[in-house]
Amino acid sequence: MSDERVLAVDIGGTKMAVGIVDPNGRVESYERTETPRVDAEGLWRTLEALLDKLHTDGELIGVGVGCGGPMKWPSAEVSPLNIPGWRDFPLRDRLRERHPGLAVRVHNDAVAVAVGEHWRGAGKGSDNVLGMVVSTGVGGGLILGGRLIDGASGNAGHIGHIVVDPGGLPCTCGGRGCLEAIARGPALAAWAEAEGWRAEQPAATAKDLAADAGRGHPIAVAAMRRAGRALGIAIASATHLCDLDVVAIGGGLAQAGPLLFAPLEETFRAHARMRFARNVRVVPAALGQTAGLVGAAALIFEGGSYWNAD
Amino acid sequence: MSDERVLAVDIGGTKMAVGIVDPNGRVESYERTETPRVDAEGLWRTLEALLDKLHTDGELIGVGVGCGGPMKWPSAEVSPLNIPGWRDFPLRDRLRERHPGLAVRVHNDAVAVAVGEHWRGAGKGSDNVLGMVVSTGVGGGLILGGRLIDGASGNAGHIGHIVVDPGGLPCTCGGRGCLEAIARGPALAAWAEAEGWRAEQPAATAKDLAADAGRGHPIAVAAMRRAGRALGIAIASATHLCDLDVVAIGGGLAQAGPLLFAPLEETFRAHARMRFARNVRVVPAALGQTAGLVGAAALIFEGGSYWNAD
Repeated sequence: MSDERVLAVDIGGTKMAVGIVDPNGRVESYERTETPRVDAEGLWRTLEALLDKLHTDGELIGVGVGCGGPMKWPSAEVSPLNIPGWRDFPLRDRLRERHPGLAVRVHNDAVAVAVGEHWRGAGKGSDNVLGMVVSTGVGGGLILGGRLIDGASGNAGHIGHIVVDPGGLPCTCGGRGCLEAIARGPALAAWAEAEGWRAEQPAATAKDLAADAGRGHPIAVAAMRRAGRALGIAIASATHLCDLDVVAIGGGLAQAGPLLFAPLEETFRAHARMRFARNVRVVPAALGQTAGLVGAAALIFEGGSYWNAD
Repeated sequence: MSDERVLAVDIGGTKMAVGIVDPNGRVESYERTETPRVDAEGLWRTLEALLDKLHTDGELIGVGVGCGGPMKWPSAEVSPLNIPGWRDFPLRDRLRERHPGLAVRVHNDAVAVAVGEHWRGAGKGSDNVLGMVVSTGVGGGLILGGRLIDGASGNAGHIGHIVVDPGGLPCTCGGRGCLEAIARGPALAAWAEAEGWRAEQPAATAKDLAADAGRGHPIAVAAMRRAGRALGIAIASATHLCDLDVVAIGGGLAQAGPLLFAPLEETFRAHARMRFARNVRVVPAALGQTAGLVGAAALIFEGGSYWNAD
């Protein structure tokens, strides 16, 4: 095997993770830390300290990054919704200064997860894949015809803002009835709490809800059904528009397993009735926690498929 | 200018049209006829008779076709919903026999319209375009990153089956609440008739309704609002998923102009609230009746962008 390696970075509101990834998508060296609530330079120093801990005997050929959005793309001045310390922070430029001569490519963190699942995960071998992350938000990325779809501004893949209930809940985006307004962890937890559910944890998350549903808590089970139905409608719309092969779903909520996927599948099949939609497979993501790092690495290793910018 | 020409064909349930198209997308020679209600060979003879009437001094380099779906793609055994005489009719093979040595490329008729609008119409110069036809059905085609998106089976672009009202009207596809179930001409006319509207024509179409709305008929105006709202929701979902530059809308209903586009725009802007969605333009299609022929020709002239099959 080639000794080429990619330095991969995954930056979200909860954690920062970095790793050295080999051409097979294996993560050789891995470090992570909580994302601190500090200013822009403090955040950068935290990232640098993490990177300093990595080690490889291989030859670094580039830096691939998934980072919470929004960002100006592909220049990657990032303003992650859940990282208030970075507003128009020049992440790509900073990484280029730190790693002169190496290609640096940054994309949305959910896009990186979708790319990882397409390259080495549940979407491997399929040309038309929607990768999704259902967690604090609902994000995603689209691979069509074997190539990552960026859209006009690098923002393609926002499945969380497909409208599933036009007269429904207001969404953080300013719209109404988006998938994310129903199925994001905090919204689902709020719904469950209003129905009488109380998690032991003070800050109840999608993962807590999924765990409680697994223990048979009836309101948590109902919450999974609610999320599953909203996901099923959105995925049916995406399937009809994009003629997908595979939809891979990751994130905390996906850990509920059949409690989420059974109502999802039922609603999806009720709405995705065009003949061509019958062959789509809706499956759990395969790569788990490191999907974002693997996808970030693929931006470098497989630039022909996943990187259409300068 | 080059003397290369394409033989272009546009086959729908209502009419068959053929033309000679030049590299600028200009239709030089044009013939059309009503699609007869005859058997498979009768339909083929009708098409051949039309083709026989065309004339060009240029050099024919290929045959491009838009045909009503569904079809097996790219082999183009066609079974158009509204042409009962053709079921698994080998349209591509027949045209190859008739024009030996020429490339023959067949795609869905709404996809051909979208390609035409991207190549030479309202989407010209934009890399991320959704072209739509709102008529007896609601169809479309997607160009993303400057390339036609085919999807897993050549069926990408089915915007008519994005779900806009999950508990709503049953759709001919077997689903419920699809855009097409609300906004297709016959459904809209049925809704208007139930509200008290009577067109003079015995078979009322989207075009009749659009015309009556133009004359100020209040129920016809309300029908345009109803269609506009459903379109606005579906286009917001498509925009968030695909990060579009331009949505170009053609077909009979689009002739209602602002009576359709004003409520469409209002609903679209209320739901398409992600910052990146603000720059999308939703506009009437520019090419009119010949969009399908122009797009069919582009499958040959610009195969690198619009033809990803064998």
